[in-house]
Amino acid sequence: MVSEMGTEVEAVQWLNGALTLLDQRCLPQQEVYLTCTDVAAVATAIQKMVVRGAPAIGIAAAYGVVLAAKQRYWQAAEEWQYHIDQDLTLLAQSRPTAVNLFWAIARMRERIKHIGGDDPVHRLLHEAESIHHEDNQANRCMGELGARLITASCNVLTHCNAGALATGGYGTALGVIRCAFRLKKIHQVYADETRPWLQGSRLTAWELLRDNIPVTLLADGAASYLMKQGNIGWVIVGADRIAANGDVANKIGTLGLAVNARYHGVKFMVVAPTSTVDLSLSHGDAIPIEHRPAAEVLTLGGESVAATGAQAWNPAFDITPAALIDAIVTEKGVIESPDQNKTMALMQNEVYLPQN
Amino acid sequence: MVSEMGTEVEAVQWLNGALTLLDQRCLPQQEVYLTCTDVAAVATAIQKMVVRGAPAIGIAAAYGVVLAAKQRYWQAAEEWQYHIDQDLTLLAQSRPTAVNLFWAIARMRERIKHIGGDDPVHRLLHEAESIHHEDNQANRCMGELGARLITASCNVLTHCNAGALATGGYGTALGVIRCAFRLKKIHQVYADETRPWLQGSRLTAWELLRDNIPVTLLADGAASYLMKQGNIGWVIVGADRIAANGDVANKIGTLGLAVNARYHGVKFMVVAPTSTVDLSLSHGDAIPIEHRPAAEVLTLGGESVAATGAQAWNPAFDITPAALIDAIVTEKGVIESPDQNKTMALMQNEVYLPQN
Repeated sequence: MVSEMGTEVEAVQWLNGALTLLDQRCLPQQEVYLTCTDVAAVATAIQKMVVRGAPAIGIAAAYGVVLAAKQRYWQAAEEWQYHIDQDLTLLAQSRPTAVNLFWAIARMRERIKHIGGDDPVHRLLHEAESIHHEDNQANRCMGELGARLITASCNVLTHCNAGALATGGYGTALGVIRCAFRLKKIHQVYADETRPWLQGSRLTAWELLRDNIPVTLLADGAASYLMKQGNIGWVIVGADRIAANGDVANKIGTLGLAVNARYHGVKFMVVAPTSTVDLSLSHGDAIPIEHRPAAEVLTLGGESVAATGAQAWNPAFDITPAALIDAIVTEKGVIESPDQNKTMALMQNEVYLPQN
Repeated sequence: MVSEMGTEVEAVQWLNGALTLLDQRCLPQQEVYLTCTDVAAVATAIQKMVVRGAPAIGIAAAYGVVLAAKQRYWQAAEEWQYHIDQDLTLLAQSRPTAVNLFWAIARMRERIKHIGGDDPVHRLLHEAESIHHEDNQANRCMGELGARLITASCNVLTHCNAGALATGGYGTALGVIRCAFRLKKIHQVYADETRPWLQGSRLTAWELLRDNIPVTLLADGAASYLMKQGNIGWVIVGADRIAANGDVANKIGTLGLAVNARYHGVKFMVVAPTSTVDLSLSHGDAIPIEHRPAAEVLTLGGESVAATGAQAWNPAFDITPAALIDAIVTEKGVIESPDQNKTMALMQNEVYLPQN
């Protein structure tokens, strides 16, 4: 699809009554698409990171609910609303940190409640497509809001992949970068390679180059030295969950970047739709952090790289305190120097839009 | 060799009139030893990182001078002292950042000056072996001095490899860790995998496990989150060059660790022999930083990992300001909260040994 803004990839698509996912484990070497025809396949795809990125996981789960409803209604039209509950639980157990997953499942559950006994597929598909479409729209809105914050032309640094691949299209952090690059506010995009899964090298570089935005990769450990001398104006990242006080769970490495950004006088921007905000958790320390297999650190491309007998500690996310964040950009507006009052106000639609 | 303290590997050895190097590019999968019989082979081995680590590079270069003298004296006994100059230049051009290389070459050059016209090999070999032996002794001394600084039992985090593989034996940062572990002051050793070259996964883990010290690896980006919750008492690293004011050049990623250590209230220790101190440079910003090929970041095991067209920024070292360092441990004593006066005093032998 060629959009007005570029040629963003569609990582999550509903095609011919099934969910088609671009297998992000195979990028950039191969563009492989996997088709999920039942809810178990969707849960596995999320768990195995065929699809990743908080908003994209939520969208995939919503389509997973459609596939579940189709099967449950066909199996027992009278009782589908009862039996589908275990499918929702299965989806919810696929990954623990990104709250968009639980948000999308909750929204689909709410829709299920009000459907009655009719064939639910059409109406649930409409809801899933709405979630997908709204996310895409939110991305474009956040892209413009975030770009307004970049007042002086500069270089930017991003971490992991918060792009079209991680969302309904366009991207959160990469949406801001796309928009600001078009507006000539960004000279150069730097991207952390983002070990252990290398989302920066494999996904962010692939996605930006596809959109003709030049990108320079660096080892994660080089980010501090880059900030010291690289004319970096902003570090721009996505989020997997934002607590009520503005603390942010995001890809492991984000906390270290935020600490370094503050030390070096670099601004720090988090870009995420309001579906990422979890008002039920007062602080970031309450956010459950997924720990992934040691093999992700100890091996590369299936080959053992570390000495036999070495252990690994492999948290997939960390928590960045609100105090280190200059701005959280959502589709409802921007929170500068986030705290609980500002986050609550935003979620209650007291929108703040920066002027520029 | 089984030493009194353990079974540290000997990465640099003079055997049968030639320099034998453990090829560190092949670890931990294979223990391959390369024999250098001329100075050009030694320069190439340093440049290609067959041997790496500031003290080990200096020792290898010293043996390289012996090989050069042997050849030059054999070719033209009258003029060897004139012709060897180009060999010293060749060695000096192999890598730019670690000052131990230039220090060792300068020491060998001084010895050459005073040899006269006799066959120089025996005397230069004696000088190279002294450099090697003194480094080994310095390591053991620093191990004890650094361990005294660890007053409460804790976990520690190290970066890159500053071990027996990087030195004349025993190690600088790993020397302190070895000593403190034997004294039961360390519960758990964490090691950054250290992209792009993976010295942590490939070398530090191999070396510590060989010495029966358990080690847990982590992605470099996870270090900040580890400091937040991992009971880390000290970050302990080596150095490639220390300026007169106490600023430290070390493996890329060290600066980011030091910034995070200060933020999280973790102490930061640099361990290096005085051959690493360069009083000719007043500040760290004057230290030349090597930039290595982009392919180190863009490929893994020879396979392209990043999208085609992506660039990479690959500095091999960064500069940590003295203000972020709690202690520099040398064989002459410890500098706490380093600055120019303390560094100058130490180099002039006003030794400070912490009591514990």
